[in-house]
Amino acid sequence: MKHLRQKMRHYTLSPHAEPAMTVTPGETVIVETLDNVGNRVNSEMDKDKIRPPLNPLSGPIYIEGAKRGDALEIIIENIKPTRDFGWTGQTSEWGFIEMGSPIWNIFKETIPTEIKICRIQGDRVTFPLKNGKTIDLPLRPIVGTIGTAPEAEAKSTTPGPYGGNMDCQEVRPKNILYLPVYVDGALLYLGDIHALQGHGELGGAPIEIPSETTLTINLLRDKNIGWPRIVSEDYLVTVGSSKPAEAAIKTALAEMVGWLMSDYSMDIWDVNLLLTATAEIECSQITNPLYTAALKISKSFLPK
Amino acid sequence: MKHLRQKMRHYTLSPHAEPAMTVTPGETVIVETLDNVGNRVNSEMDKDKIRPPLNPLSGPIYIEGAKRGDALEIIIENIKPTRDFGWTGQTSEWGFIEMGSPIWNIFKETIPTEIKICRIQGDRVTFPLKNGKTIDLPLRPIVGTIGTAPEAEAKSTTPGPYGGNMDCQEVRPKNILYLPVYVDGALLYLGDIHALQGHGELGGAPIEIPSETTLTINLLRDKNIGWPRIVSEDYLVTVGSSKPAEAAIKTALAEMVGWLMSDYSMDIWDVNLLLTATAEIECSQITNPLYTAALKISKSFLPK
Amino acid sequence: MKHLRQKMRHYTLSPHAEPAMTVTPGETVIVETLDNVGNRVNSEMDKDKIRPPLNPLSGPIYIEGAKRGDALEIIIENIKPTRDFGWTGQTSEWGFIEMGSPIWNIFKETIPTEIKICRIQGDRVTFPLKNGKTIDLPLRPIVGTIGTAPEAEAKSTTPGPYGGNMDCQEVRPKNILYLPVYVDGALLYLGDIHALQGHGELGGAPIEIPSETTLTINLLRDKNIGWPRIVSEDYLVTVGSSKPAEAAIKTALAEMVGWLMSDYSMDIWDVNLLLTATAEIECSQITNPLYTAALKISKSFLPK
Amino acid sequence: MKHLRQKMRHYTLSPHAEPAMTVTPGETVIVETLDNVGNRVNSEMDKDKIRPPLNPLSGPIYIEGAKRGDALEIIIENIKPTRDFGWTGQTSEWGFIEMGSPIWNIFKETIPTEIKICRIQGDRVTFPLKNGKTIDLPLRPIVGTIGTAPEAEAKSTTPGPYGGNMDCQEVRPKNILYLPVYVDGALLYLGDIHALQGHGELGGAPIEIPSETTLTINLLRDKNIGWPRIVSEDYLVTVGSSKPAEAAIKTALAEMVGWLMSDYSMDIWDVNLLLTATAEIECSQITNPLYTAALKISKSFLPK
Repeated sequence: MKHLRQKMRHYTLSPHAEPAMTVTPGETVIVETLDNVGNRVNSEMDKDKIRPPLNPLSGPIYIEGAKRGDALEIIIENIKPTRDFGWTGQTSEWGFIEMGSPIWNIFKETIPTEIKICRIQGDRVTFPLKNGKTIDLPLRPIVGTIGTAPEAEAKSTTPGPYGGNMDCQEVRPKNILYLPVYVDGALLYLGDIHALQGHGELGGAPIEIPSETTLTINLLRDKNIGWPRIVSEDYLVTVGSSKPAEAAIKTALAEMVGWLMSDYSMDIWDVNLLLTATAEIECSQITNPLYTAALKISKSFLPK
Repeated sequence: MKHLRQKMRHYTLSPHAEPAMTVTPGETVIVETLDNVGNRVNSEMDKDKIRPPLNPLSGPIYIEGAKRGDALEIIIENIKPTRDFGWTGQTSEWGFIEMGSPIWNIFKETIPTEIKICRIQGDRVTFPLKNGKTIDLPLRPIVGTIGTAPEAEAKSTTPGPYGGNMDCQEVRPKNILYLPVYVDGALLYLGDIHALQGHGELGGAPIEIPSETTLTINLLRDKNIGWPRIVSEDYLVTVGSSKPAEAAIKTALAEMVGWLMSDYSMDIWDVNLLLTATAEIECSQITNPLYTAALKISKSFLPK
Repeated sequence: MKHLRQKMRHYTLSPHAEPAMTVTPGETVIVETLDNVGNRVNSEMDKDKIRPPLNPLSGPIYIEGAKRGDALEIIIENIKPTRDFGWTGQTSEWGFIEMGSPIWNIFKETIPTEIKICRIQGDRVTFPLKNGKTIDLPLRPIVGTIGTAPEAEAKSTTPGPYGGNMDCQEVRPKNILYLPVYVDGALLYLGDIHALQGHGELGGAPIEIPSETTLTINLLRDKNIGWPRIVSEDYLVTVGSSKPAEAAIKTALAEMVGWLMSDYSMDIWDVNLLLTATAEIECSQITNPLYTAALKISKSFLPK
Repeated sequence: MKHLRQKMRHYTLSPHAEPAMTVTPGETVIVETLDNVGNRVNSEMDKDKIRPPLNPLSGPIYIEGAKRGDALEIIIENIKPTRDFGWTGQTSEWGFIEMGSPIWNIFKETIPTEIKICRIQGDRVTFPLKNGKTIDLPLRPIVGTIGTAPEAEAKSTTPGPYGGNMDCQEVRPKNILYLPVYVDGALLYLGDIHALQGHGELGGAPIEIPSETTLTINLLRDKNIGWPRIVSEDYLVTVGSSKPAEAAIKTALAEMVGWLMSDYSMDIWDVNLLLTATAEIECSQITNPLYTAALKISKSFLPK
């Protein structure tokens, strides 16, 4: 099994970077990732370490034979934390208040920067409170940022049709992620692993960990998809990114409509009414420059 | 047990209507509700019956002793469909395309009006497809519209702090709903029951049914709450309505922050980071004049 | 000329209120209006006077013969301030920061309530600065709130197809405002006059004055319009209210498209491209529960 | 005077491209620009020429000595059309209907692609109607896209703090544009000139022309600005880009608040109330991936 260790990480999904590794479709690869601040935070005192550049990405991985119009099929085999703790925290620039707003200019000095170190033991994460008590949380790791290179642009924290910083809870072990290919070799990047993340990623930095993430990468020829798709054990999922949040939802909806029409031979108005009765929507994040929503339908509700 | 049957329904939550019934706090009442078109749709041919006025509401119920600054505690005991079918459907004015937009003016003639009659048997709902097949769905009834009278305004389909047309999946049997009181007697209205509804209420009319809905209504004195709250077996839930969708989410978030600070003695920044790691968000609906989102935290993640 | 003086004002545009006056189409009427806080603020010390209920409205005026499907044609003849000062001010609930947001809960105590008394002399308004200097501004009065009664709802500060709290700079002397009629007699309300208001009404309370506002009210039979329209000396204007701001713009756009197609016999795609090259857009306000935008086209660019 | 003619254009504002020219601060340069489709459209039949890549950009121009934290001061000296016509047009992917929405999937086949060739003679532009008549419009050229290289990302049609595809009516001859510098030499790009553009850029392609655009480029050391600023004869202008439109407005507002506080020694709450009474807001465009708004205050209303 190939193992991607690299010195230099990237801070954009770019079509112009040199591949860090080449794989043949069907191969499984272990990718070492840093946390969102390059593993610089090690204690509650490391407040000055929470600063750009954020989200170092591993890769890009060149997939042999991948061409514009193909799709990658990526099985998230496993996400293994490579440190016995994750961190979460806040600054005056994240979360409750939007950086750059008029009110932010007034109050930014008074919002504290705080860090919590959350111990990881087996499948549990310990969340410490200020009063000395702790809350016991489950380990449910996700890949926060994963995407192929856009055709011309280089993107950092803005998610899009290529994937990117989606912070979507459905990009988790055992699920299969489909991504569009825009350039030769696809150029797959990933990083920004979270030990556990709530919908909305409300405060901006959920429990951040470095990892060894294991992926199997297949290639689907001429499988034109518009936006990322995910298949889990129980659901079909489409992922859209836009702003405001309802535009992200409608983007995911348009992709789902196309999917059900083409792969399940459904009439468009049947799709409309079936989703009206059964769709599930997860607002993955509303903190990145564009927001991400996942639209899901239970496989049990699909036509046989 | 009291039983509310009434001839005339209301089409707004208004502080000016005569009470249809008075209850003492602690009483349980069965309320008969019509479906969203006044039970006028009985077959797939009833296309001309889908038209305003929509959402006839039962009530208002006057709760003795309720005063501005109190809160109602409403236990949703049961929702019993009173017909062996529900209907779902679409018109050129609902769902995929926003009524009144420039493109709508062009294409509205070409969007079909369609009705599906979905049989209900026990706890199953049958969803018919155009190709003659059917999909088997579960019966999971919710109360689409429930609210107290606003202080001065009369509101029809716009949800707000008073509740109203929230179309929220958490307003379901066994859950407890809390609503602010603005006027003497609170004046509780409800209707618009759905046999099953997806997040987003994407097409506008999920599976619509008349019902007998059983509620136990308690009164909490001087329990100032800003927006509807719900307690389910496993979750604390706050419900916000605004536009765009992220504003609805942030409204629910503000209410949840206050709740956790006051009832669980949590530090505000602890709340921020705990919700960042564990919040669940449901976009109840993005089709009414204001959108509704529910923000949830698992009781298992609360400080002991 | 009729003169409307009344003791009791209204705080909603409601179809249920008793008419304060009846006019025959073609009549001119002088309406006395209070400022947005009922003339309670008279000095910079009156901070406790800035509180609900806001926007007392004069009327309703019953227009004889008006029926659903008609339109009112209202010539704004004159707006005369009836006090030698206006006030502007801010509280922790207006302007820079949205009331009810999570950050607002934290900082609301620290945002000052401030009032400025702005002297009015002839056509000039004096804006005092904290350092003792003043800025000389022009008097450009507008009617902030004007609307007909909705069909069923009673609305306070939410603008809509009926008009209402639009805070639109084009509702000013010499311009002609067209409003849809929903109920018998139309029931016209107005108030909330501003001596001068910027786009966006950013801080929430521009220079507030009581007034004598003179209107000539005509009736257009079966002139179905969807949203308020305005004709000024140089422009055709449509006014839309929604959220987010682009939805308000698109609402005004849809109304303008219909107007140019029907009254100027223009092809829809010609309209699209002509507006692309020449439209002017004013974001009237982004502080009320729904935002208002005005879309304008210069009469000089219309087909002859 | 330097004259920038170049064979290859760029399709992103990128920090990685080779400079096409180097200038010393204070120099004036004439830049040849192509129209938004690379001058490929020459008649109403050229429908297949309206396709990506869009917005070829001239540059980048390396400004000697420019460093992160500086600002460019760019005087738009002149914009000269280099062709006797401009084109405007529409496709199923622009304007009234958002590409990728569910409804778009249904109707895209039925939306026509249309091109109008608009003759330019002196300072007039002729807009042809389908019925054979014409409308006489003024020539009011603007620079649709102008910006410095972002620090890490490469951006195509998304405007931001660096400028970019703002399509702002205030970037016009005689006005002075200020842009932040992020990388050595600043790397200035421009293109996408419009002969005349309405607010909102509603249909997506206002009257597109190639040009010779003359700029004088100065360098302001350590002049940290957050977003583009413009000074015209009568106004101070700030330009924000975000989504939804009110977020773009609030971004421009935050920049203006800072400007008036630092350069005019104004108290923050004085600024708030002065802008409430006098701000002008232009929604430059609501068609690019992020929207752009300009916030303006008349110089006549500034403290002396």
